[in-house]
Amino acid sequence: MDTATLDLRDVRHAVDAVLEGFLAEKLDTGSVCHLPSEARQALHGFLFIGGKRLRPLLCVLGWHAAGGREELALVLHAAASLEMFHTFALIHDDVMDCSATRRGRPTLHRMLAELHHEGRSPAQAEHLGSSTAVLLGDLALAWSDELFPAARLTAAQLSAVLPIVGSMRTELMCGQYLDVVAAGQPTSDTERAMAIVHYKTAKYTVERPLHIGAALAGADPDVLASLSAFALPIGEAFQLRDDLLGVFGALGTTGKSCTEDLRDARHTVLLAHGLQRADDGQRQVLERLVGDPGLDEDGAARIRDILIATGARDSVERMITSRRDQALGLLDKASFPAAATDALRQIAHDTTTRDA
Amino acid sequence: MDTATLDLRDVRHAVDAVLEGFLAEKLDTGSVCHLPSEARQALHGFLFIGGKRLRPLLCVLGWHAAGGREELALVLHAAASLEMFHTFALIHDDVMDCSATRRGRPTLHRMLAELHHEGRSPAQAEHLGSSTAVLLGDLALAWSDELFPAARLTAAQLSAVLPIVGSMRTELMCGQYLDVVAAGQPTSDTERAMAIVHYKTAKYTVERPLHIGAALAGADPDVLASLSAFALPIGEAFQLRDDLLGVFGALGTTGKSCTEDLRDARHTVLLAHGLQRADDGQRQVLERLVGDPGLDEDGAARIRDILIATGARDSVERMITSRRDQALGLLDKASFPAAATDALRQIAHDTTTRDA
Repeated sequence: MDTATLDLRDVRHAVDAVLEGFLAEKLDTGSVCHLPSEARQALHGFLFIGGKRLRPLLCVLGWHAAGGREELALVLHAAASLEMFHTFALIHDDVMDCSATRRGRPTLHRMLAELHHEGRSPAQAEHLGSSTAVLLGDLALAWSDELFPAARLTAAQLSAVLPIVGSMRTELMCGQYLDVVAAGQPTSDTERAMAIVHYKTAKYTVERPLHIGAALAGADPDVLASLSAFALPIGEAFQLRDDLLGVFGALGTTGKSCTEDLRDARHTVLLAHGLQRADDGQRQVLERLVGDPGLDEDGAARIRDILIATGARDSVERMITSRRDQALGLLDKASFPAAATDALRQIAHDTTTRDA
Repeated sequence: MDTATLDLRDVRHAVDAVLEGFLAEKLDTGSVCHLPSEARQALHGFLFIGGKRLRPLLCVLGWHAAGGREELALVLHAAASLEMFHTFALIHDDVMDCSATRRGRPTLHRMLAELHHEGRSPAQAEHLGSSTAVLLGDLALAWSDELFPAARLTAAQLSAVLPIVGSMRTELMCGQYLDVVAAGQPTSDTERAMAIVHYKTAKYTVERPLHIGAALAGADPDVLASLSAFALPIGEAFQLRDDLLGVFGALGTTGKSCTEDLRDARHTVLLAHGLQRADDGQRQVLERLVGDPGLDEDGAARIRDILIATGARDSVERMITSRRDQALGLLDKASFPAAATDALRQIAHDTTTRDA
C-alpha cells in the first residue's frame, strides 16, 4: 500500500481479506466445535453482505497520520479486529432494538427465529432467535480479541494500545446502556441525547479507531490530541446525519426502516429539538405518535412534517455543517502526512453527506 | 501464599481482592462514562453475592501444578479475569434460559426489569430488563480482557496463553449454542447431551482454567496433557452432578429453582437416560410434562419418580463415581507438587459430592 496515494478501497479490500482468512480458518477447518452450519453461515453472511468498514479505515488512517510505515499487517489485523467487534455491537443492538432489517436484509435474530420455528410457538421461536443472535454476537466479540495481534506487539505497543481498546469498549457499552434506557421515553433533554452521541459514535466509531492505529505507530500525546480534535466533531456529525436518515431516509438506500426510530422513540437530538420547539398542538401529536408501537406511514409522515415545520431538521443540518467545518479546519492545521489528511477529508465528507 | 500448604480460601480471598480493586477503580472514580449507578450496583452485587470461584481456583492450581513459583500477582489477575468472564456467561445464560433466580436472588434481568417498570408495559419492562442485562454481560466480557494482565506478560507467555483463552471462549459459546438450540426438544440422544457437557463444563470450567494457569508457568505439553486427563472426567462429573441438583436439589441450598430445568426441557444426560429406559407409559408422561411451561411441583414430582424408577438417576450417579475415580487415579500417577495434588483432590471431591 502506497502511503503517498492512499486508496480507501485498497484498505477495505485488505481488511476484508484478513477477515475472510480468519473466518475461513474458524469455520471451515472444523476448529469450531460442533457449531451448527446455520450459525457459521449467519455470521459470515452478516459480515460480508455489506458494511462501510469505517472503523477499520480510521484505524489504518490513524496509523498513517501518526507516521506509521512498517508492519502494515499488524495494523490490518487490529483494523479487522475492530470490524469483528462492530459485528458484535450491531448484532446485539438489533436484538435490543427489536430491529427487523439491517443492510437491507432481515436482522440476524429474525433470520434465526425463522430457521427454528418448527415445533415451537412464535414466542418460543422469537426468544430462540434472540438467544442465538446474542450468542453469535458474543462469539464475534471473543473473536475480535483473537484477531487482535496482541502476541505480535512489543511491550510498548501493548501498553499504549490495550487501554485504548478497553476504553473504546466500555464507552460503547455505556453509550448503548444510556440509549436503551432512554428509548421509549423521549424528552427535550438535548444534553442526554448528546451524551449518547458522544459515547456511541464520536468516541467509539471515530476517535478510538484513529487512536488505536496511531498508538500502534507510537504516536505522541500531541498527535492523539489532534486526532481527537478532528474525530469528536466528525463523529457527532456522523451520528446526527444517521439520526436524520433514520427518520427522513429511504429504506432502499439505508437498508433500515425509517419508521423504526420513531416507533421505538429513540432519544435523538433531532427529536429533542422537535419537542423543544413544538407548540402545544405539535407537542401533543409528537407525544402521542412517537413511541406508538402501531405507528404507520401516515403517522410517521405527520411526525416528519412537525420536525420540518419546527425547524428541528434544519437545526440538526446546521449542527452537522458546523461540526464538519470544525473538523476540516483542524485537518488544515494538523501536520499529518498529506495522504492521511486527504483520506480523512474524504471520510469527513462521505460520512456527513451520505444518503445511506 | 505458601505452596507447601495451599489453602483454597486464601486463593479465593486474593482473587476477590483483585476483583474488588478493579471494580472500585471502574465504578467509583467516574472512569465509567455516565453508567447509571443502578448498573454499577447490579454488577457489583452479582459478583459478590456468591459464587464458588471455581475457575480462578483452578487457574491458580494449574500454575502450581506446573511448578509456578514467581509472579503470583499475574496469575491472580488472570484468575480474576476468568471470574469476570464467567460473570458475563452467567448473566447471558440467565437471559437465554429465562431463569428467575440465581444465587438465591432474582436474576439480573429480572431485577433490572423490575427497576424500569414505571411508565412501561410488562412486556416492555421485561425486554428492557433483558437488554440491559445483556449489556452488563457484554461489559463483564470486555472487562475480563482488561483484568487479563496481557501487557505484563512476556512474549512467550502471551503466545502460550492467548490461544488457550481464545479456545476456552469459543468452546463455551459453541456449547451454549448447542444447549440453547436443544432445549425444549429433549431426546434420548446421550451423545449430544455429552457434547454439551464436554464444551460447557469439562473444557470451559475445568480444563481451560487449569491450562491457562499452567501456561503462565511455562508448562510443557506433558503437563498440559496430564491436567486434561484429570480435568475432562472431573468436569463431566461436575456437570452431571449439576444436572442431578437441577432436578433433585433443594432451592434453599442450590439458589436455583429445581423445576426450571424440567420446565425448560434442558437436554441433559439424565433426561436422555430417562427417555431411553422408560416404558411406553413412562415415556408418554415424560414427553407431556417435560417442557410444559405450566409445569408445577406435582408434575415435577412425577418426572422425578420416573427418573428414579427407570434407574436414570442411579446411572448418572454411577457415571459421576467412575469419572471421579478416573480423575483421582490420574492425580496419584501425575507428578504435580504435593500441595497442588492435595488441592486438586479436594476440588474433585467438592465438585462431585456437593449439594449446592
